[in-house]
Amino acid sequence: MFEKIRNHIEGKIQKKLLEEDLKGFTNLLEIKTVKKRDSLLKEGQFSNYQFYVNQGLLYSWQTGKDGERQVLNFAFEDFWTGDLFSFFTGQPAQHEITAIEDTEVLALSKAGFEKACNTIPVFEHFFRILIQNAYVSSQLRWAHYNSSDAETRYLELIHKYPDLTQRVPQYLIASYLGIQPQSLSRIRGNLSHH
Amino acid sequence: MFEKIRNHIEGKIQKKLLEEDLKGFTNLLEIKTVKKRDSLLKEGQFSNYQFYVNQGLLYSWQTGKDGERQVLNFAFEDFWTGDLFSFFTGQPAQHEITAIEDTEVLALSKAGFEKACNTIPVFEHFFRILIQNAYVSSQLRWAHYNSSDAETRYLELIHKYPDLTQRVPQYLIASYLGIQPQSLSRIRGNLSHH
Repeated sequence: MFEKIRNHIEGKIQKKLLEEDLKGFTNLLEIKTVKKRDSLLKEGQFSNYQFYVNQGLLYSWQTGKDGERQVLNFAFEDFWTGDLFSFFTGQPAQHEITAIEDTEVLALSKAGFEKACNTIPVFEHFFRILIQNAYVSSQLRWAHYNSSDAETRYLELIHKYPDLTQRVPQYLIASYLGIQPQSLSRIRGNLSHH
Repeated sequence: MFEKIRNHIEGKIQKKLLEEDLKGFTNLLEIKTVKKRDSLLKEGQFSNYQFYVNQGLLYSWQTGKDGERQVLNFAFEDFWTGDLFSFFTGQPAQHEITAIEDTEVLALSKAGFEKACNTIPVFEHFFRILIQNAYVSSQLRWAHYNSSDAETRYLELIHKYPDLTQRVPQYLIASYLGIQPQSLSRIRGNLSHH
């Protein structure tokens, strides 16, 4: 059950976890499952959890000015997802998180997060690194969104998530890239001719 | 010299610092001064430092698509500034940081940051909180930028920085808000009639 998250954490902190530290942490986790097309979190709810994807695939999205779904991120196995803004501030979630496949997550509550940080030093370290990475990703996402063309962003996306096109519907990939599905088809057509 | 930053840290961690922890940390800091209109960091340089403003006032900005300066943030006394993205990734800075007044900062290098986090547990805690806050601020900035009108954003800004209008030139405030200086004059005119 906890082998994947153990490997994930040890990869980030670049050392082995003590059994007692791992146990102290996994005791704080709750296992949740969500069926394909159901949501783990809805816009306007309070986001008291961060979710580690054990098995399956989720995406987070918000309603854009034109009423369309804007895809913000995908969370494959071994990724964390959640509305960090809501989690830290206690304000209602600005995102919704929906399952693309039947999914199993390990959920860490706000109280569990604080307890892990305050009582197991290696988890303060782990979460400092994780939040740093989240910060960098969000900066990068905005910088690219404003400066790169859609083809470049598509290539970066499939580099980051190699099984993206096998598991994520076209219209969600197009929404993530901020383009129409027809434009995505054109890009993929161009790339397949090179 | 270090009384302000001590109070700042104790405020964030909500407890007193041990003398030896404070000393271990302040030994890692370098004092730098920058004259009004000079830059602490230039776009494209490597940002190996985070800066705590001891005295003075800085702003960070980037060159927009139209070649204009886009103001990203102001750093008054007791704020940290720097290009966190460049700091964490080792990539060239996307921001420039320029002094609005003669300014004195305490500079913490990347190596100093890692040493503080890895050898003084209370600083791992402090920086985890600081990075969380930076993450929340950057999310909030984007959310507001996309949804609020300029008058609301102006009111929030002067609420956050009460001496903003006494210390920051109009054209920089307008740039931060993403509006023309004339529009800012109009907003201030309207508000003074209420």
